[in-house]
Amino acid sequence: MTTTTQEPCLLTIQQAGGLIRSRKLSPVELTTAFLQRIDALDGKVKSYVTLTADTALAEARRAEAEVTRGQYRGPLHGIPIAFKDLYDTKGVRTTAQSKVHEHRVPGEDATAVAMLKAAGAVTLGKLAMHEFALGGPPTSLFEQARNPWDLDHVTGGSSSGSGAAVAAALCMGSLGSDTGGSIRGPASLCGIAGLKPTYGRVSRYGVIPLSWSLDHCGPMTRTVEDTALLLQAIAGPDPRDPTSSHAPVPDYTAALRDDIRDLTIGVPRHYFLDPTQVNGEVAAAVDKALGELASLGARVRDVTIPSLDYASIANTVIMISEAYTYHRKDLVSQPQNYGDIVRLRFYMGGLYTADDYVQAQRARSRIKREFAQVLERVDIIACPTSLNTAATFKDIDPLATTRQPSFTAPFNATGMPAISIPCGFSAAGLPIGLQLAAKPFDEPTLLRAAYAYQQHAGWHEHMPPL
Amino acid sequence: MTTTTQEPCLLTIQQAGGLIRSRKLSPVELTTAFLQRIDALDGKVKSYVTLTADTALAEARRAEAEVTRGQYRGPLHGIPIAFKDLYDTKGVRTTAQSKVHEHRVPGEDATAVAMLKAAGAVTLGKLAMHEFALGGPPTSLFEQARNPWDLDHVTGGSSSGSGAAVAAALCMGSLGSDTGGSIRGPASLCGIAGLKPTYGRVSRYGVIPLSWSLDHCGPMTRTVEDTALLLQAIAGPDPRDPTSSHAPVPDYTAALRDDIRDLTIGVPRHYFLDPTQVNGEVAAAVDKALGELASLGARVRDVTIPSLDYASIANTVIMISEAYTYHRKDLVSQPQNYGDIVRLRFYMGGLYTADDYVQAQRARSRIKREFAQVLERVDIIACPTSLNTAATFKDIDPLATTRQPSFTAPFNATGMPAISIPCGFSAAGLPIGLQLAAKPFDEPTLLRAAYAYQQHAGWHEHMPPL
Repeated sequence: MTTTTQEPCLLTIQQAGGLIRSRKLSPVELTTAFLQRIDALDGKVKSYVTLTADTALAEARRAEAEVTRGQYRGPLHGIPIAFKDLYDTKGVRTTAQSKVHEHRVPGEDATAVAMLKAAGAVTLGKLAMHEFALGGPPTSLFEQARNPWDLDHVTGGSSSGSGAAVAAALCMGSLGSDTGGSIRGPASLCGIAGLKPTYGRVSRYGVIPLSWSLDHCGPMTRTVEDTALLLQAIAGPDPRDPTSSHAPVPDYTAALRDDIRDLTIGVPRHYFLDPTQVNGEVAAAVDKALGELASLGARVRDVTIPSLDYASIANTVIMISEAYTYHRKDLVSQPQNYGDIVRLRFYMGGLYTADDYVQAQRARSRIKREFAQVLERVDIIACPTSLNTAATFKDIDPLATTRQPSFTAPFNATGMPAISIPCGFSAAGLPIGLQLAAKPFDEPTLLRAAYAYQQHAGWHEHMPPL
Repeated sequence: MTTTTQEPCLLTIQQAGGLIRSRKLSPVELTTAFLQRIDALDGKVKSYVTLTADTALAEARRAEAEVTRGQYRGPLHGIPIAFKDLYDTKGVRTTAQSKVHEHRVPGEDATAVAMLKAAGAVTLGKLAMHEFALGGPPTSLFEQARNPWDLDHVTGGSSSGSGAAVAAALCMGSLGSDTGGSIRGPASLCGIAGLKPTYGRVSRYGVIPLSWSLDHCGPMTRTVEDTALLLQAIAGPDPRDPTSSHAPVPDYTAALRDDIRDLTIGVPRHYFLDPTQVNGEVAAAVDKALGELASLGARVRDVTIPSLDYASIANTVIMISEAYTYHRKDLVSQPQNYGDIVRLRFYMGGLYTADDYVQAQRARSRIKREFAQVLERVDIIACPTSLNTAATFKDIDPLATTRQPSFTAPFNATGMPAISIPCGFSAAGLPIGLQLAAKPFDEPTLLRAAYAYQQHAGWHEHMPPL
């Protein structure tokens, strides 16, 4: 096999998969190219915390041998990817970016990891994240990943390394996790696609939890097509995750069309485009995107979700309460192994009463109901993903999420599928994210809307200036 | 129309319905007979807190007129029933047996009440209960109902008046509510059938809550056939109760056959028949019933639910925490209007942490999972309903439920449908209850098993010596 491009790392998964299938691209050369690119660039980006170069090359060689003898496994065969460092990887350290797990080596793969390996994907390594999927920098174990669009800026979190590595083309795709926006936030700030699927759509077995009732696993890629390919490989029931759903898994790639003339898009402007909250450049880019969606034939109209103001605090109370339950023994026995911010926030979880938690779940039920009512009349909810573009490390407020409304958390509360895709850049050259959400298990319509916008707008073709 | 029996109050709903349909029984005479019987006996039983004689007679007259002109509504047309006093009844005081609601008159009917009225049922009045569906005697508003089998004994709770009134034939059926066993417990202690349907099967709109995630509404009647008839009328989705399910409503009466040769019955003996917990007479009666079920052709075998020991405390923490959230404003503004025991227990709810509640919900998830696994291999779970027969008012421990395992609470935690039916009497002449449970929404199989046993054993034919 010979490589047909000067820089195969810039191919999409879909493109590379087609070339591998037709044996125009060598999985070994592709993996080698990524390892070289990581070697050249990741000293700046700092997206990897563990590189598994040897096993990656072995996996790539196996993929190449299988493809050569006609045992093609599908569109992920030989595709180099990487995992947020809270996905258990057999024999490879998995830390959740915490000193608590500094030497933790799982004996088996998380279900989603195993599914991607079974689909033939090659694992390059483990990616940086915010400590225990909660804290921002500083963290207790590794340095934080840096935003490829401007290295002085954060990536957003908590799937920080996933956002940075995908944006910088240091892997073709990644799995992140999302409890309040941890896939969509970094996708937005790094200018890539990041999908939080429906609650129950993807197994969470073998993924270190933050909050059982809010955690979601999902893909982060450069394009919507690639998101569909990764989701296809990891969606479905898992007997080891009792929260995973038996809902049928449709063909996500087949759903991608650039026709959205049958769709109605609802915009809860009162919450997501409140000019006292959202940055002006973000609002302008999203409003422009809404106009483009309308120009593509979708009906775009404002909708009201009266209880949205409660979403952020409800999400926080539930998240931190459940995290405290998970961490309380370690918080007592090894408090020094937690970063200051994370320890403080987990301690807060110990102070909430059952009443606080029940009230938060009641607010959550109300918000879920209100969205369900609106989704009887619209197919897609559209809004910004983040209030702002990426802050600098110098200016970042590690407790910002406790002080500001969250544009992503409402969809963790409701369990609706939600995706962030790029919709422009600020004057400073930082990416802006458009968030689309849909009915539970209606990823096909969600991905179709995202794809139609992507194809029209073309922002995914921009690459950071590394 | 003429009445064909000396004591029409002793007819079952099914019998009376057939006679009304064929115009051999007058709804007005039937209602009049019940009002006379209540007048004669309820001074001893104390099951009614509000009697609506005038409207009952008006409803009976309307039913009679409709039947006479051929507008027969179905098997509940003209059937006199009564409601636990936490079901909202339009224009009729609804107190939950609490001084907090001493003068509360709802402006509309609870959905289940409205459905029974639409089916033509006649409402005799409102029945005693334990205060706010939690406390035992003493209570803050009315006297407690007394057990018709021995008036010195309690009825169990919290649907105390429902248990007493149905057992004493002071109504043909009643709706109770069940958060930890409040339908099945009194059914067991009063020797009648009481069904807690699957969570979501019956709307809870207009029913004063105790605990949102554990409350269930369901029927209490003398026979399994009558339970099926009442369930048929109240099952189904309700847009005003977001927790109500859209699962199809089958024909429950059609499911009643006395053939159970295809059924496997699992007995979690380790928990429900532990001789250090359960009363010997209760255990003997239930073991005899299990033998009879086997003699009818069912396979009966022991099963293990390892986490059952956590069920009672998990149920209590969830129940009391959610109750505190509902009551906390009133607990501050009018503590004197709560009974001592209820106020104490609600205050306890304010002391639980979010961690306690989350742990309880985790235990609940585990128990639910374990039952689901066992229900892949068995159709029915069988066990005693109560640890003991009814205690005397003198000996009752109002906090007993906080000190003993509960045999009913596990099925509130799991949401499984569960029924109590009589399976014998103690040497002192007090009823003993057999509890059967099934897969969520498999009320047809549950009712079939209960019916087959009832027809074989005949305990439902016994009437209390009033």
